[in-house]
Formats: sequence, C-alpha cells, structure tokens
Amino acid sequence: MYELGVVYRNIQRAQKDVAANLGALGTATVHEAMGRVGLLKPYMRPIYAGARAHGTAFTVLLQPGDNWMLHVAAEQIQPGDIVIAGVTADCTDGYFGDLLATSFKARGAQGLVIDAGVRDVSVLADMQFPVWSKAISAKGTIKATLGSVNIPVVCAGALVNPGDVVVADEDGVVVVPAASAQKVLDKAAAREANEAEKRAKLAAGVLGLDMYRMREPLQEAGLRYID
Amino acid sequence: MYELGVVYRNIQRAQKDVAANLGALGTATVHEAMGRVGLLKPYMRPIYAGARAHGTAFTVLLQPGDNWMLHVAAEQIQPGDIVIAGVTADCTDGYFGDLLATSFKARGAQGLVIDAGVRDVSVLADMQFPVWSKAISAKGTIKATLGSVNIPVVCAGALVNPGDVVVADEDGVVVVPAASAQKVLDKAAAREANEAEKRAKLAAGVLGLDMYRMREPLQEAGLRYID
Amino acid sequence: MYELGVVYRNIQRAQKDVAANLGALGTATVHEAMGRVGLLKPYMRPIYAGARAHGTAFTVLLQPGDNWMLHVAAEQIQPGDIVIAGVTADCTDGYFGDLLATSFKARGAQGLVIDAGVRDVSVLADMQFPVWSKAISAKGTIKATLGSVNIPVVCAGALVNPGDVVVADEDGVVVVPAASAQKVLDKAAAREANEAEKRAKLAAGVLGLDMYRMREPLQEAGLRYID
Amino acid sequence: MYELGVVYRNIQRAQKDVAANLGALGTATVHEAMGRVGLLKPYMRPIYAGARAHGTAFTVLLQPGDNWMLHVAAEQIQPGDIVIAGVTADCTDGYFGDLLATSFKARGAQGLVIDAGVRDVSVLADMQFPVWSKAISAKGTIKATLGSVNIPVVCAGALVNPGDVVVADEDGVVVVPAASAQKVLDKAAAREANEAEKRAKLAAGVLGLDMYRMREPLQEAGLRYID
Amino acid sequence: MYELGVVYRNIQRAQKDVAANLGALGTATVHEAMGRVGLLKPYMRPIYAGARAHGTAFTVLLQPGDNWMLHVAAEQIQPGDIVIAGVTADCTDGYFGDLLATSFKARGAQGLVIDAGVRDVSVLADMQFPVWSKAISAKGTIKATLGSVNIPVVCAGALVNPGDVVVADEDGVVVVPAASAQKVLDKAAAREANEAEKRAKLAAGVLGLDMYRMREPLQEAGLRYID
Amino acid sequence: MYELGVVYRNIQRAQKDVAANLGALGTATVHEAMGRVGLLKPYMRPIYAGARAHGTAFTVLLQPGDNWMLHVAAEQIQPGDIVIAGVTADCTDGYFGDLLATSFKARGAQGLVIDAGVRDVSVLADMQFPVWSKAISAKGTIKATLGSVNIPVVCAGALVNPGDVVVADEDGVVVVPAASAQKVLDKAAAREANEAEKRAKLAAGVLGLDMYRMREPLQEAGLRYID
Repeated sequence: MYELGVVYRNIQRAQKDVAANLGALGTATVHEAMGRVGLLKPYMRPIYAGARAHGTAFTVLLQPGDNWMLHVAAEQIQPGDIVIAGVTADCTDGYFGDLLATSFKARGAQGLVIDAGVRDVSVLADMQFPVWSKAISAKGTIKATLGSVNIPVVCAGALVNPGDVVVADEDGVVVVPAASAQKVLDKAAAREANEAEKRAKLAAGVLGLDMYRMREPLQEAGLRYID
Repeated sequence: MYELGVVYRNIQRAQKDVAANLGALGTATVHEAMGRVGLLKPYMRPIYAGARAHGTAFTVLLQPGDNWMLHVAAEQIQPGDIVIAGVTADCTDGYFGDLLATSFKARGAQGLVIDAGVRDVSVLADMQFPVWSKAISAKGTIKATLGSVNIPVVCAGALVNPGDVVVADEDGVVVVPAASAQKVLDKAAAREANEAEKRAKLAAGVLGLDMYRMREPLQEAGLRYID
Repeated sequence: MYELGVVYRNIQRAQKDVAANLGALGTATVHEAMGRVGLLKPYMRPIYAGARAHGTAFTVLLQPGDNWMLHVAAEQIQPGDIVIAGVTADCTDGYFGDLLATSFKARGAQGLVIDAGVRDVSVLADMQFPVWSKAISAKGTIKATLGSVNIPVVCAGALVNPGDVVVADEDGVVVVPAASAQKVLDKAAAREANEAEKRAKLAAGVLGLDMYRMREPLQEAGLRYID
Repeated sequence: MYELGVVYRNIQRAQKDVAANLGALGTATVHEAMGRVGLLKPYMRPIYAGARAHGTAFTVLLQPGDNWMLHVAAEQIQPGDIVIAGVTADCTDGYFGDLLATSFKARGAQGLVIDAGVRDVSVLADMQFPVWSKAISAKGTIKATLGSVNIPVVCAGALVNPGDVVVADEDGVVVVPAASAQKVLDKAAAREANEAEKRAKLAAGVLGLDMYRMREPLQEAGLRYID
Repeated sequence: MYELGVVYRNIQRAQKDVAANLGALGTATVHEAMGRVGLLKPYMRPIYAGARAHGTAFTVLLQPGDNWMLHVAAEQIQPGDIVIAGVTADCTDGYFGDLLATSFKARGAQGLVIDAGVRDVSVLADMQFPVWSKAISAKGTIKATLGSVNIPVVCAGALVNPGDVVVADEDGVVVVPAASAQKVLDKAAAREANEAEKRAKLAAGVLGLDMYRMREPLQEAGLRYID
Repeated sequence: MYELGVVYRNIQRAQKDVAANLGALGTATVHEAMGRVGLLKPYMRPIYAGARAHGTAFTVLLQPGDNWMLHVAAEQIQPGDIVIAGVTADCTDGYFGDLLATSFKARGAQGLVIDAGVRDVSVLADMQFPVWSKAISAKGTIKATLGSVNIPVVCAGALVNPGDVVVADEDGVVVVPAASAQKVLDKAAAREANEAEKRAKLAAGVLGLDMYRMREPLQEAGLRYID
C-alpha cells in the first residue's frame, strides 16, 4: 500500500559516476546485465527522437488528473536526479509542460519518466528536456489530492525505489537498484567489451551460428535442413 | 442521430483573425482557457513532427472504409478551413492521400483531422499538409455509401460544429465554438501574458510552491515532510 | 499448422527487377493494384522516419521471447531478401538489435519486418537498416525453442510465402505473391501513370467530383445540397 | 464546447410509449431503422448477462475520477429516464455503485450508460439495475469539480441530447433523437414485421441468396464458382 | 495474396469422427498435441458461457463492413462444418445475427468463428448456436464488395485451410490441418490418457515437482531455497 | 530489481481472521478504507461470474511463456494463501489449468491472481477455483527459466509483498499490507456500518445531495440551475 501525503527529503542516492557509466552503456546492455528485469513497459516512449538520459531516481506518486505533487517535488530535486512518476489509476492527461520543465531543469533534473501524459512537447524538445511518457495530451490537471514524494512507486509495471539508477533511451527505461548498481555496471561493461569484436566479425560475414556455437544445440533440438 | 446524405453549403464560420490568434497560442493554452473541454482524444497524432494548424471547422461524416464524401467536401472547402472528419464506426483505412491533399490544398484547406487512417504520409510531409489521424495505412477506401458534409460530427470523442475554431499542434487538437471564440481568446491571451514572467522566475529557481502559494493548502491537506 | 524445426534452404524468389519496380511505386499504389489485399496490419510501424525497403520475402517463424531462429536465418539470407518474422504468440520483446542487423546486412538483407519488438533502434537508424515492428523494447530474448525458416508464415495478419515480393514504406508493408508479381506491377504502373496528370489537374483546382465523374452516382444515391 | 456547471431542470422528453416500443424491438433493429447511425462504440458492455433497458436520455457530463454530478443528477431524474454519462477524459474509475443505484432506482431510473467504470457489480446484478459501461473497477471517485446535467453530451463516440430515446441490450446501446423517434419506430416495426416470415423460410432451408435476390448482383460483380 | 471473387464448391474435408474426437478433447489438449501452434489469438471469445464446438473448417473471406459473402457461403455449407471468417481489415461491425444463424443452422453448420463482430447475441445464445468473435455490435453491414469462399484465410492471426479441423471452447479456437488430424488426435488422446491419473495424484497432495521430476533441473538452473 | 532464482520458504502472513473479515467487506469498501490505493488494474477479471476470494498473498515471479515457478510454488503454499503471479514481460499464454488448480487446491490455496492467461476455465469454474487474469488462452507454457517465489512482485500495476492480505471479487483485486491490515479493517468496518442506514434512506427517496450535505459546496463551486 502506498503511504499517502508524505515527502521524504533525505534519500540515499546511487553514486553519480556509476549512474553515468550505466547511462553510457544504454538500456539494452544494462537490462541484459541485470538478468532481464527492471524494464518499464514498452508503451513508455520518448517524446522526441534521440532522447537519452540517466540519473538517480526521484520518485513521485500522483493521483489521476492531478499534478500537485510535481510542484512539491520540484523543491526536493537535486542535480542528477531523474523524476519517476507513477499514478494511482490509468490517466493520459498532460501533467507536465514547459513551465514545470523550466523549474525541474533549474533544479538540475535530467529528465522525467511519467506513466501518464505530458504537453508542450515541441517546447520540451526545443529545451532538450527528455521525457518518457505513455501519452501526449494538451489536457491540464487539477491540484486537489495528495500523493507522495520519494516513496517506492510502481511506474509502468516496474518498482522504483528512490535513489535507484535510471537509464533511459530510445529503447525504453531501465531501473537499477542502488545497492547492485556497481555490480550491474561491471557485468554490463564486460558485456559491452565483447560487442565491438563481435560486431566486426559479423560485419565480416562470420555467422552467429558459429560465433555463438549454436549448431550443435540446434541439431540436438532436432532442427532439420531441407534442400 | 446524424442526418445522412446532405451537404450544407453555407455555414457560419468563426472570424479568421480570432482563429489565427487562437492558433498562435497553441492547444494547451486554448484548452485551459476553455475550462478543459473541447479536446479530441489523445490517440489523434500528427503524421509528421512539427505539424501545426488552425482554421475554421469544415465537417465531414464518413462511412467506414468509404471516402466518397471527402470528394464531395473538396468542392465546398473555403480558404482557412480545416477539415474535420468523423466516421460512423471504427476504421483505420487510409481515406486520404496525396491526390486529395493536392485538391484540398488547392481549395485553401489548412489541414485535416480524421478519426481514421491516412496514407502517402511521406508525400504529405513533403507538401507540409498537416494531418492529425488515429492511424496510418496504405489501405484505400471505396465510394459506395453517403455520409454528410457540414453537419455537427463527433470526431475522436469531441463534438464539432461547422464553423468552430480548430487549433491543432503536437499536443493534440482542440475545438472552440464559434460563438465563444473571442471570449476564449481573451482568456487564453491573458493566461499567456503571465507565462513569460512565470517562466523567467522558474528558470531563476523560484519554486512553483511559492509562486502559486501552494504551501498553505498543502499543509491543510495534511502533507508531511520527513527527514 | 506450422511445421516446426525445419529450414528450407532453397526457395523460389520473385524476380529482383519486378521487386525493385514494385518498391519504387510504394505500398499504397501496389496495394490498390492487388485489389486491396496483402497489407499487414497498420500497427506495424517503421522504427525511423523515411524508412523504405523492398525485396523478396525470407520468412522466419519465431517462438515468443526466443530469437534463436533469427541466427539460423542469417546463414540462409541472400542479397535482396527482406526478412519477415511471425511469432506463435503475441510478444513485444526486443528480438533484434545492432549485432543481428550487422550480420543481416552483411548477408545482403534489405530490412526486417517483425510482428514483435526490436531494440538498439538509434543504432539501426544510424546504420539505415530499415525495420518495421509492432514494438520497441530493450528486453532481450532467449534461445531455447525451435521455430522454422522459409515456411509460409502469418505476420501481422497477412500470409507471407517465402519468395513473395515485399514492399514497405511509411504507409505500411504489402506482400505480393511471386506468381502474380509481374501482373500486379503492370496494374500498379498503369495506375501510377495516371497519377501525375491527375495531380496536376487537382492542383489547378479541377475537382475530383468532375475528374472521377461522381456527380451522377451521388445524385442517384440521393445526395442533397442545402443552401 | 461543453457548458460547465449547469443543470437543466426542464427537458423535453420523447414519448414514453414510443420509447417502450423501440425498446421492445431491440438495438439491432432500431439501429438499422435509423440508417446505421446513433450506436455507441461496442466497447460499452452490459455488466450482467440478459441486461435490457429503454427510456428517455437523462444526460450527465462528468469530470475524470469525479462523480459529484451523479449526485446532482439524482434529484432531477424522472421515472422512465436512462442516465447517460460522458466524461471529459478517458477514465475507468468506479463512478457508480450500489448506493447511487438505490437512489437512482428510487427516482425511477431505468438504467445507466456510462463511458467509464462502475463497481458493486454483483449487487447491481442482484438488484437487476442494468448498467452499460466500459470498465468495472473498485476504485472510487472524488467530488471536486463541476460538470453539467442535461446538456448534449458525447458518450462512447455518440452525441446524446437530453430527452432522446435510448435502447440498450446485449448488442449495445442506440440513441434515437426525440424528434425522429416515431418515424424510426415505424421503420423499425416494418422491418421487424418481415423478420418472422424470413426466419421461417431460412429455417426451412430457403437461402438468403434467393430470398434477397442476390444471385444476379453477385454475378454482375464477377463472382465465380469453381468446382 | 487472397484470390477475390471466387467460391470453391468442392473442398476436401477432414474425417468427421476425427474432428469429433478432437472436439471431445478440447482446445488446450489439442493445442499441446500440435506442438503449440494453430491457436487463434486470445481476443477471440465465445458469445455465451459454455460454448463448445468442433467441425470442419468452411472458410470465408469478408470485406470490412460487408457481409455479402456470408450469404454466398450459406449455400455451400455442409453438415458438420464450422464457418471461419477472416476480414481484409480490422472491423467490429455485427456481420451475423439471428437470421443468418437460422440459415446456417438449417444447413448444418456447427458454429461460427469470425474475426469481427456479431449481433443478436441473446437470441444466438437461446438458439445455442455457438459463435467466437472479437466484438459484439448492433451495427449491420452492407453488401457491396466480393470476398471469397473456401480459400485459405487468416483468421485472428492463424492460417485456416478449408477442410481443416476446428476445435473451439471457452479456452479459444484451434485449427488442425486435415492432413495431420489423425496424428494430432493420437498424440492428444495419449496426453489425455495420463491426465486422470495425474489429477488424482495431485489431488492427493503429490507435487508436480516430484511427479514431473523437476527438482534436479531446477537445482541445476541454480534455484536457491531461503529459510 | 527482482531477485531471480530464489524461493523464500518462511514468510510473515497477515492474520487469517483479519483477512477473512476484509474479504467479507469486499474490494470496493476495502479500497476506500485504504485511501484508494492498492488496487490492481481493472483489466484483471474473474474467469467466472460470482468469483470471490480472500487470503494471504503468496507471490510468484514468472518469466514470459514459462510456468516453471508455479510448480515450485505449489510446494510452499499454505492453507489460506492466494497466489499472486507477476510476469517480467507482457504475456497472454495459459500458464495455469486444471492440473495445477488441483494441486494448488490440495495445498489449501484460495485462488489465483495472475497478470497473464489461464486455460481450462470451464473446469476451473466447475471446481469453483477462483482466478483473476488478464487473458484466457489455450496456449501452454515451457519450463526453462527461473523466476522467484515469495519476493515482492508487481502484479497488474500493484506492488504485492508476500503475506499481504488479498481481497478479490467481481469489482477487482485489492492488496492490503500485512502491517496495516487491522487498521484498514477497522476503517472499512466503520464505513460499512453506515452503509445499511444510507441505503435505506436512499431507497426511501432521500437524496445524496441532502444526506451528504452537498448543496452548499456545489453552490460555492458555482453550480447553476436553469429552468
């Protein structure tokens, strides 16, 4: 059950350099390194082409059609945070536009991930303030009911704890728990290290069948070739 | 109940300059000024980035998979109109392509808003003929059943009367009744006038909490800060 | 019923020049020439603006969340092929990324059409390797269950036989059977031949009502004009 | 544009016996008699098997997640009304449960059609208070923002004016304008009169091809039989 | 590509007793016996609780919003057939109601599987004429464009050839190719033979972990128990 | 991040009598008492009419298309548990059928809530084993990849901790944290205590407007009555 009407001011943030290194690797590599968990649902899409962000999760729980808590949130944001907003019921309203983006940017926010709608998207694109959302809508919101700030929230099917590392790009949004961020980074970096070599081989015409030694297991599974 | 098989040739259009001024303010501001009504559902998306249009509503009621009435419509379009097309049942077919766009443009149409699909979208983008639709599909349509032109239609959940003002941009599509267009413009302009100042304050680090005087109502609502 | 665990190495491909000519005409024209059949569902979207491809269908049947057969497929791809991948159950996972794209490109593949998700889309865009998919997702896939290569597959609601012509652009994806490709090309080319003239007339203000001689049938259908 | 914050107390209701006769014919027959317009989208489903209702439209415009106006509505309901509720933005919350149903029933309401969610559905089924909705949800709603009562509303894609006839059954919900209700009834009754005879013929093995004289038009359209 | 405007009068039907035996086993068992292919998408739902049917596939290709070919189909139906209808584009209209059901039943049809909508569903339930559809809608259809009868069709994502065995129940709809029907029946029957014994063991408290010998592979996969 | 490959054998379960009392009050009342949080998304529907269940949450994390962990789970279930299953990616496969239901029932499970599909639903209805799912599908699943048992899982948008109270009925599924179950029960019971009296008043024609004293706030909000 969500705790409503509370703002946690002090949260334990993952290390910035770890977040930065994970961000550089991108969501696909990080998600693999985590054992394929921690990904938000693929309906979350960036509002402009080329959007990329990473940072520490700053969480907000919103009520449907009500963006009051985003204003409360602004005061607590610290440079390097990415705001992750969940909602207590499905809603596509435009919770966030250029004014809030200006305020969030002034506080050092790296972007917004919101399981709802946003607006002023052409201005947000001009500002290069990256947002991942499930909708775009001109519809504004009221300020009537309390949610919370920096409690654990579910956003687009994933549990996000304040301070977790968030990596977002055109492939989606991945959340890495602060406690395992370094370990995930190590795995992800190791995975990445092999990619350049693999890519060169594949570009040269080497087959994945050979490079990954799949021929034997395929034969064991019963694969038949027919001429 | 829709009146079928009729074409209204004379409609009362909203004033062009009012439409132009509303268009310059954008959908989010206009929608707020209307009290948050008049917005089409957010599944209506522009077919290319940066699409923007405004004008007077020229309405068409279409039958599913049948674009006959769009040809009938072309003759009646006047410069400054935006064509708003509803359909009597859900359909994603491509009702509109580059030929109709050429014809509509020649008649002075400012764009198309259609609760169905369109095609030839790369050509439409090259022509800079803006379209908001719920789908993109290469599938063409037949010409077999009558609909109507310039009757009140429901398009993507919103009632549109011929002659209303239509404002469309990347945030969606808003419809303003002709009779209240000037009043909405006044409110929207007043709203906009404050935005530059607010943006500057927020950019300087002033919080919405203070600028909008939210601290007291939040406290009354029971918000608790936890360190 | 799908035949599982088989790879057909020799398929009869449609003629390359016919595929190229169909590709130049685009999906909307080709789809019309086919009598409005052969179109994949419109949820299939290109992963980047401006994507266009044509080629001979190279089919793959995949299991949900399992991309093993794409590796098997790579070995059999011939220059000019477009890979068409169906899945035995709905899935949005990212089956395909930059490494497989590198391999497919090295084999001469012209693109990928997949009724599931892909990832590394910004790299794929940089490589200009066109993909039509129903989702974008960072989630990877396992390699555990056999599907098949070059059997007839259903992809996004359309039956695709190996060797068919595939035309894909921003309006969608159309499949033309190899046996009727030349006939469809003839019809499509004839249709296209008239388009330039029509476009010029429409641009000059001639109405479709007159150009297509619709006034009489509309009157017979009972259309009434009201002043 | 919706007029907000108003309650129209006096509406012109269609004749009760016409509504009753239309109700007896059912939605499919009535919809045909109207020329196939006036049907709400098919996502509107009855909450229990066998639900059927008819009456005069009593309209309510609701705000998302806010059922305040349903309480305002209760006072104005007259025996024979069916409440039709539209919402200014998509919402699946449970706006209506057993308490409101008790109140509505006491006022003589024949049922509810709501483009949102309802709850207490097992109690509503026990009460035999029929509801057509797009969702079922235990989530309650707030009472904070005004909508309106008895203005024209769009509900599930259809325009409904207060006083229209509403017919609802397991096939959906149809709205007949008060002004044309008698004419639609005449057509619907004529249509129904032939159905029993047709059904008997078809049950005896007579083919629709012969009964509807379709063989000639099919041949003209080019239908070929292949043995 | 679909062949349009043709009616195949003579099709090779699977053996009736094989169809009956497969029908008795149900979709889940048959689907397993086929290696988990041949299932229509799960959005296909029966229109009443307890619906069950089996028979030989009689296929129809329909145009969107047009049920002309269902009338053509009626003449060709033979006792024991199940009608499987695909549509060339997404459509939820009510193609089929009580009159067509009366006719189909008189011809010996066992049911209908249609990738679109149907109506008169309460009458169909009373008649116990089982239908699996993706929608229920009072909206009728026109009779203007040819489709085909007894060509291979894609229905809800599955390829169906005329004469295949169709098994449908509350779990969905499965298609078994005529050529492999006996083999699939043998496998399905063998599978079923073990179920009673397994059920008894499980009811007695034996664990699947032991019955299926999963403990060792789970341990190898690295499963850890934590007290 | 989910911890993969672990089975927690000892979990702290909420008190049985508290769960039973919450179950008797139903989801709508419990959800209100919780401040309107803790509800699973409304796409979760019972597989048969009249389904109702309550118990202590026994959580399972599943991989897409893979039900291995349900077999692992069976051994750990204790009488009074409700199994809550989340999946790491969207999937509609039929993870659970009559054999697993027999086993779960033998272990004392009160029902299943699964963010995926189930099968054998007519048998499950006969067994009166209640299930809430997002799909029904005959498609079976493999046993290849580890998930976890009794870790915190997200199911249909809600976070569920092992041992929480689960209440499920025809209005949906609500989760109450073990730690606050007694407090929520007290609030819910208090709420329920007033309902009978309110229902009697409303049935007698008293208006909610008066009973809830809404007239004054409505007037302050500006509501206007028009005759």
